[in-house]
Amino acid sequence: MSKGLETKETILKSALDLTSKFGLESLSIGGLAKSVGMSKSGLFSHFKSKETLQIMVMDYAAENFTLKVIKPAITEPRGLPRLVKMMDLWIEWSDHYMPGGCPFLSAIVEYDDRPGKVRDRIEELQGTMIGSFEKAVAISIEEGQLNDHHSPEFLAYKIYSNMIGYHIYSRLLKRNNAKDFFLRGFDSIIEPVRVS
Amino acid sequence: MSKGLETKETILKSALDLTSKFGLESLSIGGLAKSVGMSKSGLFSHFKSKETLQIMVMDYAAENFTLKVIKPAITEPRGLPRLVKMMDLWIEWSDHYMPGGCPFLSAIVEYDDRPGKVRDRIEELQGTMIGSFEKAVAISIEEGQLNDHHSPEFLAYKIYSNMIGYHIYSRLLKRNNAKDFFLRGFDSIIEPVRVS
Repeated sequence: MSKGLETKETILKSALDLTSKFGLESLSIGGLAKSVGMSKSGLFSHFKSKETLQIMVMDYAAENFTLKVIKPAITEPRGLPRLVKMMDLWIEWSDHYMPGGCPFLSAIVEYDDRPGKVRDRIEELQGTMIGSFEKAVAISIEEGQLNDHHSPEFLAYKIYSNMIGYHIYSRLLKRNNAKDFFLRGFDSIIEPVRVS
Repeated sequence: MSKGLETKETILKSALDLTSKFGLESLSIGGLAKSVGMSKSGLFSHFKSKETLQIMVMDYAAENFTLKVIKPAITEPRGLPRLVKMMDLWIEWSDHYMPGGCPFLSAIVEYDDRPGKVRDRIEELQGTMIGSFEKAVAISIEEGQLNDHHSPEFLAYKIYSNMIGYHIYSRLLKRNNAKDFFLRGFDSIIEPVRVS
Protein backbone atom coordinates (compact mmCIF):
# COMPACT_ATOMS: atom_id res chain seq x y z
CA MET A 1 0.00 0.00 0.00
CA SER A 2 1.47 3.39 -0.98
CA LYS A 3 1.93 6.15 1.61
CA GLY A 4 -0.90 8.15 0.06
CA LEU A 5 -3.34 5.25 0.23
CA GLU A 6 -2.26 4.46 3.79
CA THR A 7 -2.96 8.03 4.86
CA LYS A 8 -6.36 7.99 3.19
CA GLU A 9 -7.18 4.68 4.91
CA THR A 10 -6.16 6.12 8.31
CA ILE A 11 -8.29 9.20 7.75
CA LEU A 12 -11.33 7.25 6.58
CA LYS A 13 -11.04 4.82 9.49
CA SER A 14 -11.03 7.74 11.90
CA ALA A 15 -13.95 9.37 10.06
CA LEU A 16 -15.92 6.11 10.27
CA ASP A 17 -15.28 5.88 14.02
CA LEU A 18 -16.59 9.44 14.44
CA THR A 19 -19.64 8.66 12.28
CA SER A 20 -20.36 5.50 14.23
CA LYS A 21 -20.27 7.48 17.49
CA PHE A 22 -21.75 10.86 16.59
CA GLY A 23 -23.56 10.39 13.29
CA LEU A 24 -22.84 11.41 9.72
CA GLU A 25 -24.30 14.92 9.93
CA SER A 26 -21.94 16.02 12.70
CA LEU A 27 -18.89 14.80 10.75
CA SER A 28 -16.88 17.81 9.60
CA ILE A 29 -13.52 18.30 7.92
CA GLY A 30 -12.47 20.52 10.83
CA GLY A 31 -13.45 17.95 13.48
CA LEU A 32 -11.81 15.14 11.54
CA ALA A 33 -8.60 17.19 11.14
CA LYS A 34 -8.41 17.50 14.94
CA SER A 35 -9.06 13.79 15.44
CA VAL A 36 -6.31 12.64 13.01
CA GLY A 37 -3.89 15.46 13.88
CA MET A 38 -3.71 16.89 10.38
CA SER A 39 -4.25 20.38 9.09
CA LYS A 40 -7.73 21.31 7.88
CA SER A 41 -6.26 22.43 4.54
CA GLY A 42 -4.50 19.09 4.16
CA LEU A 43 -7.80 17.28 4.61
CA PHE A 44 -9.56 19.63 2.19
CA SER A 45 -7.08 18.52 -0.48
CA HIS A 46 -8.28 14.93 0.10
CA PHE A 47 -12.02 15.53 0.29
CA LYS A 48 -12.88 18.93 -1.25
CA SER A 49 -16.22 19.21 0.61
CA LYS A 50 -18.14 17.85 3.59
CA GLU A 51 -20.53 16.12 1.20
CA THR A 52 -17.68 14.27 -0.55
CA LEU A 53 -16.25 13.28 2.84
CA GLN A 54 -19.63 11.93 3.96
CA ILE A 55 -20.05 9.91 0.77
CA MET A 56 -16.50 8.53 0.99
CA VAL A 57 -17.04 7.48 4.59
CA MET A 58 -20.22 5.63 3.68
CA ASP A 59 -18.40 3.97 0.76
CA TYR A 60 -15.61 3.00 3.13
CA ALA A 61 -18.11 1.49 5.59
CA ALA A 62 -19.71 -0.45 2.75
CA GLU A 63 -16.32 -1.76 1.55
CA ASN A 64 -15.54 -2.79 5.11
CA PHE A 65 -18.88 -4.59 5.33
CA THR A 66 -18.24 -6.37 2.01
CA LEU A 67 -14.75 -7.37 3.13
CA LYS A 68 -15.80 -8.63 6.57
CA VAL A 69 -19.26 -10.05 5.89
CA ILE A 70 -19.99 -10.71 2.21
CA LYS A 71 -16.66 -11.86 0.74
CA PRO A 72 -15.77 -14.46 3.42
CA ALA A 73 -19.30 -15.91 3.11
CA ILE A 74 -18.71 -16.60 -0.60
CA THR A 75 -16.31 -19.41 0.37
CA GLU A 76 -19.33 -21.34 1.71
CA PRO A 77 -21.45 -23.49 -0.64
CA ARG A 78 -23.98 -21.51 -2.74
CA GLY A 79 -27.33 -20.45 -1.28
CA LEU A 80 -28.41 -21.09 2.28
CA PRO A 81 -24.97 -21.88 3.81
CA ARG A 82 -23.76 -18.52 2.47
CA LEU A 83 -26.73 -16.69 3.93
CA VAL A 84 -26.22 -18.32 7.33
CA LYS A 85 -22.52 -17.39 7.23
CA MET A 86 -23.42 -13.77 6.37
CA MET A 87 -25.56 -13.59 9.52
CA ASP A 88 -22.74 -14.98 11.70
CA LEU A 89 -20.24 -12.55 10.24
CA TRP A 90 -22.63 -9.61 10.40
CA ILE A 91 -23.22 -10.13 14.13
CA GLU A 92 -19.47 -10.13 14.66
CA TRP A 93 -19.01 -7.04 12.48
CA SER A 94 -21.81 -5.20 14.21
CA ASP A 95 -20.65 -6.11 17.74
CA HIS A 96 -16.89 -5.74 17.35
CA TYR A 97 -16.04 -3.37 14.54
CA MET A 98 -18.62 -0.66 15.16
CA PRO A 99 -18.21 0.37 18.80
CA GLY A 100 -20.50 3.38 18.38
CA GLY A 101 -23.23 1.49 16.55
CA CYS A 102 -24.03 0.83 12.91
CA PRO A 103 -22.93 3.80 10.80
CA PHE A 104 -25.57 2.97 8.18
CA LEU A 105 -28.41 2.99 10.67
CA SER A 106 -27.44 6.43 11.95
CA ALA A 107 -26.99 7.71 8.40
CA ILE A 108 -30.40 6.34 7.42
CA VAL A 109 -32.16 7.98 10.33
CA GLU A 110 -30.42 11.31 9.72
CA TYR A 111 -30.76 11.46 5.94
CA ASP A 112 -33.93 9.57 5.01
CA ASP A 113 -35.83 12.83 4.58
CA ARG A 114 -33.02 15.08 3.29
CA PRO A 115 -32.86 14.93 -0.51
CA GLY A 116 -29.37 15.12 -2.01
CA LYS A 117 -26.28 13.18 -2.98
CA VAL A 118 -25.59 11.86 0.53
CA ARG A 119 -29.09 10.46 0.87
CA ASP A 120 -28.90 8.94 -2.62
CA ARG A 121 -25.65 7.16 -1.80
CA ILE A 122 -26.95 5.80 1.51
CA GLU A 123 -30.04 4.48 -0.27
CA GLU A 124 -27.88 2.90 -2.97
CA LEU A 125 -25.46 1.24 -0.50
CA GLN A 126 -28.23 -0.04 1.75
CA GLY A 127 -30.01 -1.34 -1.36
CA THR A 128 -26.82 -3.17 -2.37
CA MET A 129 -26.55 -4.83 1.04
CA ILE A 130 -30.19 -5.92 0.94
CA GLY A 131 -29.55 -7.05 -2.65
CA SER A 132 -26.87 -9.46 -1.35
CA PHE A 133 -29.46 -11.10 0.87
CA GLU A 134 -32.02 -11.19 -1.96
CA LYS A 135 -29.46 -12.86 -4.20
CA ALA A 136 -28.50 -15.44 -1.57
CA VAL A 137 -32.19 -16.26 -1.04
CA ALA A 138 -32.80 -16.49 -4.81
CA ILE A 139 -29.88 -18.92 -5.14
CA SER A 140 -31.22 -20.94 -2.17
CA ILE A 141 -34.51 -21.30 -4.08
CA GLU A 142 -32.70 -22.22 -7.32
CA GLU A 143 -30.68 -24.83 -5.46
CA GLY A 144 -33.85 -26.34 -4.02
CA GLN A 145 -32.84 -25.52 -0.44
CA LEU A 146 -35.82 -23.18 0.05
CA ASN A 147 -39.25 -23.35 -1.57
CA ASP A 148 -40.66 -20.40 -3.49
CA HIS A 149 -43.69 -19.61 -1.30
CA HIS A 150 -42.20 -16.17 -0.69
CA SER A 151 -40.21 -13.91 -2.99
CA PRO A 152 -36.48 -13.33 -2.29
CA GLU A 153 -37.39 -9.64 -1.78
CA PHE A 154 -39.86 -10.43 1.01
CA LEU A 155 -37.53 -12.86 2.77
CA ALA A 156 -34.68 -10.34 2.52
CA TYR A 157 -36.96 -7.71 4.10
CA LYS A 158 -37.60 -10.05 7.02
CA ILE A 159 -33.90 -10.89 7.36
CA TYR A 160 -33.02 -7.18 7.33
CA SER A 161 -35.73 -6.32 9.89
CA ASN A 162 -34.39 -9.03 12.18
CA MET A 163 -30.90 -7.50 11.97
CA ILE A 164 -32.11 -4.00 12.82
CA GLY A 165 -34.27 -5.35 15.65
CA TYR A 166 -31.25 -7.17 17.10
CA HIS A 167 -29.14 -4.04 16.87
CA ILE A 168 -31.63 -2.04 18.97
CA TYR A 169 -32.34 -4.84 21.47
CA SER A 170 -28.64 -5.36 21.97
CA ARG A 171 -27.38 -1.75 22.05
CA LEU A 172 -30.19 0.38 23.44
CA LEU A 173 -32.19 -2.07 25.48
CA LYS A 174 -29.15 -4.16 26.49
CA ARG A 175 -31.33 -7.28 26.59
CA ASN A 176 -29.35 -10.38 27.44
CA ASN A 177 -31.44 -12.47 25.11
CA ALA A 178 -30.89 -10.22 22.06
CA LYS A 179 -28.56 -12.66 20.31
CA ASP A 180 -30.79 -15.62 21.09
CA PHE A 181 -33.77 -13.67 19.65
CA PHE A 182 -31.73 -12.79 16.55
CA LEU A 183 -30.79 -16.42 15.90
CA ARG A 184 -34.29 -17.72 16.59
CA GLY A 185 -35.70 -14.85 14.53
CA PHE A 186 -33.58 -15.90 11.56
CA ASP A 187 -34.57 -19.55 12.00
CA SER A 188 -38.24 -18.64 12.14
CA ILE A 189 -37.88 -16.85 8.79
CA ILE A 190 -36.08 -19.77 7.14
CA GLU A 191 -37.69 -22.85 8.69
CA PRO A 192 -41.19 -22.41 7.17
CA VAL A 193 -39.70 -22.27 3.64
CA ARG A 194 -36.85 -24.76 4.08
CA VAL A 195 -37.04 -27.85 1.89
CA SER A 196 -36.22 -30.66 4.29
CA MET B 1 -56.88 23.60 28.87
CA SER B 2 -55.30 26.55 30.69
CA LYS B 3 -53.21 29.14 28.84
CA GLY B 4 -50.02 27.81 30.47
CA LEU B 5 -50.73 24.22 29.42
CA GLU B 6 -51.63 25.34 25.91
CA THR B 7 -48.31 27.17 25.57
CA LYS B 8 -46.40 24.15 26.83
CA GLU B 9 -48.26 21.92 24.37
CA THR B 10 -47.41 24.28 21.49
CA ILE B 11 -43.75 24.36 22.48
CA LEU B 12 -43.48 20.60 22.87
CA LYS B 13 -45.24 20.02 19.54
CA SER B 14 -42.74 22.27 17.84
CA ALA B 15 -39.85 20.60 19.68
CA LEU B 16 -41.10 17.18 18.56
CA ASP B 17 -41.28 18.35 14.93
CA LEU B 18 -37.68 19.55 15.16
CA THR B 19 -36.60 16.26 16.77
CA SER B 20 -38.39 14.24 14.12
CA LYS B 21 -36.58 16.21 11.39
CA PHE B 22 -33.11 16.87 12.84
CA GLY B 23 -32.70 14.47 15.75
CA LEU B 24 -32.72 14.87 19.51
CA GLU B 25 -29.09 15.88 19.91
CA SER B 26 -29.42 18.97 17.72
CA LEU B 27 -32.48 20.17 19.66
CA SER B 28 -31.54 23.28 21.65
CA ILE B 29 -33.44 25.79 23.75
CA GLY B 30 -32.08 28.57 21.49
CA GLY B 31 -33.17 26.85 18.27
CA LEU B 32 -36.57 26.01 19.71
CA ALA B 33 -37.06 29.63 20.88
CA LYS B 34 -36.55 30.79 17.29
CA SER B 35 -38.95 28.19 15.92
CA VAL B 36 -41.80 29.09 18.33
CA GLY B 37 -41.05 32.84 18.35
CA MET B 38 -40.42 33.08 22.09
CA SER B 39 -37.50 34.45 24.02
CA LYS B 40 -34.74 32.07 25.04
CA SER B 41 -35.14 33.15 28.68
CA GLY B 42 -38.89 32.44 28.49
CA LEU B 43 -38.15 28.89 27.34
CA PHE B 44 -35.50 28.41 30.01
CA SER B 45 -38.17 29.07 32.62
CA HIS B 46 -40.13 26.13 31.16
CA PHE B 47 -37.31 23.63 30.70
CA LYS B 48 -34.31 24.69 32.83
CA SER B 49 -31.80 22.66 30.75
CA LYS B 50 -31.34 21.01 27.36
CA GLU B 51 -31.44 17.61 29.05
CA THR B 52 -34.84 18.33 30.64
CA LEU B 53 -36.13 19.60 27.30
CA GLN B 54 -34.96 16.41 25.56
CA ILE B 55 -36.58 14.20 28.18
CA MET B 56 -39.85 16.16 28.05
CA VAL B 57 -39.95 15.90 24.26
CA MET B 58 -39.48 12.13 24.43
CA ASP B 59 -42.20 11.93 27.08
CA TYR B 60 -44.46 14.02 24.86
CA ALA B 61 -43.80 11.72 21.88
CA ALA B 62 -44.60 8.71 24.05
CA GLU B 63 -47.86 10.29 25.28
CA ASN B 64 -48.77 11.05 21.69
CA PHE B 65 -48.05 7.43 20.74
CA THR B 66 -50.17 6.16 23.64
CA LEU B 67 -53.01 8.50 22.70
CA LYS B 68 -52.98 7.68 18.99
CA VAL B 69 -51.96 4.01 18.98
CA ILE B 70 -52.41 2.25 22.33
CA LYS B 71 -55.55 3.82 23.85
CA PRO B 72 -57.81 3.53 20.77
CA ALA B 73 -56.77 -0.13 20.40
CA ILE B 74 -58.06 -0.89 23.91
CA THR B 75 -61.63 -0.51 22.60
CA GLU B 76 -61.09 -3.71 20.57
CA PRO B 77 -61.66 -7.14 22.16
CA ARG B 78 -58.78 -8.36 24.37
CA GLY B 79 -55.72 -10.00 22.82
CA LEU B 80 -55.15 -10.44 19.11
CA PRO B 81 -57.74 -7.92 17.82
CA ARG B 82 -56.05 -5.27 19.97
CA LEU B 83 -52.62 -6.17 18.64
CA VAL B 84 -53.85 -6.00 15.04
CA LYS B 85 -55.45 -2.63 15.72
CA MET B 86 -52.21 -1.33 17.25
CA MET B 87 -50.38 -2.20 14.02
CA ASP B 88 -52.99 -0.37 11.89
CA LEU B 89 -52.84 2.70 14.09
CA TRP B 90 -49.05 2.64 14.32
CA ILE B 91 -48.68 2.68 10.53
CA GLU B 92 -50.99 5.70 10.42
CA TRP B 93 -49.11 7.44 13.25
CA SER B 94 -45.76 6.72 11.67
CA ASP B 95 -46.83 7.84 8.17
CA HIS B 96 -48.94 10.88 9.03
CA TYR B 97 -47.93 12.36 12.37
CA MET B 98 -44.16 12.11 12.07
CA PRO B 99 -43.24 13.82 8.79
CA GLY B 100 -39.52 13.77 9.61
CA GLY B 101 -39.45 10.12 10.71
CA CYS B 102 -39.84 8.31 14.00
CA PRO B 103 -38.45 10.49 16.81
CA PHE B 104 -37.71 7.38 18.89
CA LEU B 105 -35.65 5.74 16.19
CA SER B 106 -33.47 8.82 15.79
CA ALA B 107 -33.13 9.18 19.56
CA ILE B 108 -32.16 5.49 19.86
CA VAL B 109 -29.49 5.76 17.21
CA GLU B 110 -28.07 8.95 18.70
CA TYR B 111 -28.14 7.98 22.37
CA ASP B 112 -27.71 4.19 22.54
CA ASP B 113 -24.04 4.58 23.47
CA ARG B 114 -24.18 7.81 25.51
CA PRO B 115 -24.81 7.00 29.16
CA GLY B 116 -27.00 9.49 31.02
CA LYS B 117 -30.55 10.52 31.87
CA VAL B 118 -31.62 11.02 28.25
CA ARG B 119 -30.49 7.55 27.24
CA ASP B 120 -32.14 6.04 30.33
CA ARG B 121 -35.46 7.67 29.50
CA ILE B 122 -35.36 6.57 25.85
CA GLU B 123 -34.63 3.01 26.97
CA GLU B 124 -37.49 3.17 29.47
CA LEU B 125 -40.01 4.58 26.97
CA GLN B 126 -39.04 2.15 24.23
CA GLY B 127 -39.26 -0.68 26.77
CA THR B 128 -42.78 0.48 27.69
CA MET B 129 -43.87 0.42 24.05
CA ILE B 130 -42.45 -3.05 23.52
CA GLY B 131 -44.10 -4.00 26.83
CA SER B 132 -47.50 -3.08 25.33
CA PHE B 133 -46.91 -5.60 22.55
CA GLU B 134 -45.68 -8.24 25.01
CA LYS B 135 -48.81 -7.75 27.09
CA ALA B 136 -51.12 -7.97 24.08
CA VAL B 137 -49.39 -11.20 22.99
CA ALA B 138 -49.58 -12.63 26.54
CA ILE B 139 -53.33 -11.90 26.63
CA SER B 140 -53.73 -13.49 23.18
CA ILE B 141 -52.16 -16.65 24.61
CA GLU B 142 -54.33 -16.52 27.76
CA GLU B 143 -57.43 -16.10 25.60
CA GLY B 144 -56.46 -19.15 23.54
CA GLN B 145 -56.07 -17.11 20.33
CA LEU B 146 -52.35 -17.90 20.07
CA ASN B 147 -50.51 -21.00 21.23
CA ASP B 148 -47.56 -20.73 23.57
CA HIS B 149 -44.82 -22.15 21.31
CA HIS B 150 -43.03 -18.81 21.61
CA SER B 151 -42.77 -16.40 24.55
CA PRO B 152 -44.58 -13.04 24.38
CA GLU B 153 -41.10 -11.43 24.58
CA PHE B 154 -39.85 -13.20 21.46
CA LEU B 155 -43.02 -12.48 19.46
CA ALA B 156 -42.89 -8.81 20.55
CA TYR B 157 -39.25 -8.67 19.36
CA LYS B 158 -40.36 -9.94 15.95
CA ILE B 159 -43.28 -7.50 15.82
CA TYR B 160 -40.98 -4.62 16.74
CA SER B 161 -38.33 -5.63 14.17
CA ASN B 162 -41.03 -5.73 11.49
CA MET B 163 -42.06 -2.16 12.40
CA ILE B 164 -38.51 -0.81 12.20
CA GLY B 165 -37.90 -2.68 8.93
CA TYR B 166 -41.04 -1.12 7.44
CA HIS B 167 -39.97 2.32 8.57
CA ILE B 168 -36.65 2.06 6.70
CA TYR B 169 -38.10 0.39 3.59
CA SER B 170 -40.79 3.03 3.40
CA ARG B 171 -38.78 6.17 4.22
CA LEU B 172 -35.22 5.58 3.04
CA LEU B 173 -35.66 3.01 0.32
CA LYS B 174 -39.07 4.34 -0.79
CA ARG B 175 -40.09 0.82 -1.80
CA ASN B 176 -43.65 0.69 -3.11
CA ASN B 177 -44.20 -2.68 -1.50
CA ALA B 178 -43.11 -1.57 2.01
CA LYS B 179 -46.64 -1.61 3.43
CA ASP B 180 -47.45 -4.94 1.81
CA PHE B 181 -44.23 -6.39 3.31
CA PHE B 182 -45.14 -4.95 6.72
CA LEU B 183 -48.61 -6.53 6.67
CA ARG B 184 -47.35 -9.87 5.35
CA GLY B 185 -44.46 -9.68 7.82
CA PHE B 186 -46.91 -9.32 10.71
CA ASP B 187 -49.07 -12.17 9.37
CA SER B 188 -46.06 -14.44 9.05
CA ILE B 189 -45.25 -13.82 12.72
CA ILE B 190 -48.80 -14.52 13.89
CA GLU B 191 -50.03 -17.28 11.55
CA PRO B 192 -47.64 -20.04 12.75
CA VAL B 193 -48.85 -19.57 16.35
CA ARG B 194 -52.49 -18.75 15.69
CA VAL B 195 -55.00 -21.25 17.13
CA SER B 196 -57.43 -21.74 14.27
